[in-house]
Amino acid sequence: MLKPVLEQLAHNHDAALARLEAFLAIPSISTDPNHTTDIRRAADWLGKTLPQMGLQTRIHTTKGHPILVAKSHGNDVLNPNAPHVLFYGHYDVQPPDPLDQWTTPPFEPAIRNNAIYARGASDDKGQLCTILESLRAWKVTHGKFPVHVTCLIEGEEECGSEQLPTFINSHREELASDIAITSDTTMWDIQTIAITYGLRGVVYFDVQLHNATRDLHSGVYGGALANPATILTGVLGGLFDNKHRVTIPGFYDDVLPVTDEEHRRWLTLNFDETSEYFDPIGIKVPFGEDGYSTLERRWARPACDINGLYGGYGGEGAKTVIPSFAGAKVSFRTAPNQVADKIAHHFTSWLTNHDTHGCQWEIKQFGSCDPIVLPTDSAYITAARRACKVTSGREPALVREGATLPIVIDFKKTLGVDTLLIGFGLSDDCIHAPNEKLNLDCFNLGCRTHAALLGELATFNGPMGQASARTLQTK
Amino acid sequence: MLKPVLEQLAHNHDAALARLEAFLAIPSISTDPNHTTDIRRAADWLGKTLPQMGLQTRIHTTKGHPILVAKSHGNDVLNPNAPHVLFYGHYDVQPPDPLDQWTTPPFEPAIRNNAIYARGASDDKGQLCTILESLRAWKVTHGKFPVHVTCLIEGEEECGSEQLPTFINSHREELASDIAITSDTTMWDIQTIAITYGLRGVVYFDVQLHNATRDLHSGVYGGALANPATILTGVLGGLFDNKHRVTIPGFYDDVLPVTDEEHRRWLTLNFDETSEYFDPIGIKVPFGEDGYSTLERRWARPACDINGLYGGYGGEGAKTVIPSFAGAKVSFRTAPNQVADKIAHHFTSWLTNHDTHGCQWEIKQFGSCDPIVLPTDSAYITAARRACKVTSGREPALVREGATLPIVIDFKKTLGVDTLLIGFGLSDDCIHAPNEKLNLDCFNLGCRTHAALLGELATFNGPMGQASARTLQTK
Repeated sequence: MLKPVLEQLAHNHDAALARLEAFLAIPSISTDPNHTTDIRRAADWLGKTLPQMGLQTRIHTTKGHPILVAKSHGNDVLNPNAPHVLFYGHYDVQPPDPLDQWTTPPFEPAIRNNAIYARGASDDKGQLCTILESLRAWKVTHGKFPVHVTCLIEGEEECGSEQLPTFINSHREELASDIAITSDTTMWDIQTIAITYGLRGVVYFDVQLHNATRDLHSGVYGGALANPATILTGVLGGLFDNKHRVTIPGFYDDVLPVTDEEHRRWLTLNFDETSEYFDPIGIKVPFGEDGYSTLERRWARPACDINGLYGGYGGEGAKTVIPSFAGAKVSFRTAPNQVADKIAHHFTSWLTNHDTHGCQWEIKQFGSCDPIVLPTDSAYITAARRACKVTSGREPALVREGATLPIVIDFKKTLGVDTLLIGFGLSDDCIHAPNEKLNLDCFNLGCRTHAALLGELATFNGPMGQASARTLQTK
Repeated sequence: MLKPVLEQLAHNHDAALARLEAFLAIPSISTDPNHTTDIRRAADWLGKTLPQMGLQTRIHTTKGHPILVAKSHGNDVLNPNAPHVLFYGHYDVQPPDPLDQWTTPPFEPAIRNNAIYARGASDDKGQLCTILESLRAWKVTHGKFPVHVTCLIEGEEECGSEQLPTFINSHREELASDIAITSDTTMWDIQTIAITYGLRGVVYFDVQLHNATRDLHSGVYGGALANPATILTGVLGGLFDNKHRVTIPGFYDDVLPVTDEEHRRWLTLNFDETSEYFDPIGIKVPFGEDGYSTLERRWARPACDINGLYGGYGGEGAKTVIPSFAGAKVSFRTAPNQVADKIAHHFTSWLTNHDTHGCQWEIKQFGSCDPIVLPTDSAYITAARRACKVTSGREPALVREGATLPIVIDFKKTLGVDTLLIGFGLSDDCIHAPNEKLNLDCFNLGCRTHAALLGELATFNGPMGQASARTLQTK
């Protein structure tokens, strides 16, 4: 049944591109209050487009920007036993500054070098459209959708998705599904689709150390009392041992080891860390926990970073002050199986066990997120791999990601569903930067791959693989 | 010969206070370009007042604010063999903000609670006037000055004295003298004059560590490269050992030990560190190098302080960034006999000997100043002690100071003269703060003590004690 769908996609290429251009022309910048009307325009554009595809669509107002939920009718499915798929995407974009560095204006989509250039082309309007076009092609070709469909599309992804967790929780029934699918990541290279099956979590702190009631003269007081900047530096200076491992007791206890199979698979990725990872950011020396490769450090090992230092005088020249307080932003990227709350407890215990010689801690924790890893042998990933092979002619790269995607954890925790992350962006797409683009081959590959994946899922009789997909996340 | 001088001071008390009030009424704020005219008015006020006292006065224009030099005529001295005394003071004041916290306006001198309230009352116009009134009283009483007099009065002390070192160097002959005297410090307590015979030096650095060419996402890169904030913290976290001593090799090599006599003398000061030093700034726990008292840590031991930390994200909430660089202000208060250049060399060697895993140092050094200590048995300090005993009825406290007074080092290095620092302010004078004041008993004691000291110095036949005063500074 896939072949005519792919033909329909080929036939409809220009129309699909025109739709994407119309979508990209709306400057739906979620962080900028001056663009609230544009945000609404983008939501309305979807609110008009999705029903045309045969999806029952509702624009939900929230305290922030609107959230769309679009669903297939109950009997509008080729195989009523097929799984229920929850597609996720976002219609908001990053601000386009600096404007003068764009070759063509960010909200006037332009095609050159076989790519479409506009803010949001890759992140995420273009990739979202690969999903929508695949659904449209199935519906046009076969009159019905291949699976039960729910689309959840938000407008606050670029400003923290503040409304989303509450929304998901209060719309659990409406969003009930067997698997979630999203495209907001990158391919491994221009020939190889990437399926991301693991994410790190994050635990983030602001730690301040306070002593005197005011800043002091360093001549009059230097050496005779505890300087919070010095003491804080002394404490945080002990975060790592000489193997560059975090010294916090219990920190590594729950870390899931990389399996032999993953080791073997990652080697076959032929990751050229110098040219692909370090050179573009000017890094000369790989560095991290002893005994691990760069890919392992990024994807499978927890990290601790000081994200900021502040306190006392930081301007030009010299000021002889002993600051009344000093602070640091300290965060942890947790590896699969570590639990945010346990890491937070270990860290704060470690901090407060130090003798600070009268200085007092003020510790704030910000939103944390657990890591996740999905088994690569689930029925859904197997289906996705088959789809990728059909459309790209080669096995997709099964990769992890060092960063955190809270939506994946929200879907897991609130709805009990795993998320397939299938990326069609490229690492040089300049997302969040001037001249963002989406390669047109990638766009077409995305449309075709989602169509093929829908075809694979349509053959399922009921949800499959869920139990297995959940095993690693329970600890 | 002193008695009639002291009687003259008593007789002239109201006139002296009126002169001080006129001086204080001029808002000579040196840091504020809006007050350039007032700075000039203050210089002109001195330029009119000093000649009335019989001093040849010249207002030198500089690239900054004017510097005054006022000298006695060659034959206008009671004892032509008496030493030549260089008096130093400053006519500029700190900004008065916050204005709403002043009980009476900062430039409308008001007398209450036996004190005169105005910006500059204690720092330094009021204390400078104790010198000028003592000179005036001698001249009026005996028709001549008791010693050869040069007054050097600047208008940039509160904004860094930028012009002064060059001025002193280019006016070495005009400023040639046997001893310098200044009053810009505090008494030990309201009954006890303090003579400061030791100062710490300062060596100040801005150290930055750089790695990636831009800030990075801590999820994508965390754990796989050297984070400059983390590495910097690790390096600076090693500045102290568990005895709270600086770990930099060679750091303590040249430190002059406190003599047994000083130990004994400091004990007799009955320094109540809790109520006088720590309580007013909210410090609960004394802290510093093991094995030393608070007074030793302040006055005689070198200190190392981080004066500021910066780099990465320091705002509210969380930002998951690996900063491209991080920096710290690091300064050393050097103890007598330490040499600024050696300390700078030790520190930069220590820094750069660390493996920073590809991160690169950017190290800036700012103006440094050597420490100094004068022998307490010099003829000049002996004369000052006698003068204090005559006027206050008790031995002055011989103290050191943890801070740095660059003018003392400039006088020493450029003119070869030691400086007597005799303080008549009180620690609660609120200098640099609202409601600055000078106690009137302190003002009178200052006038009388300078008069008495002039009488002591008038008995000298030529300079005395210089060789001895210089011995400790040569290493």
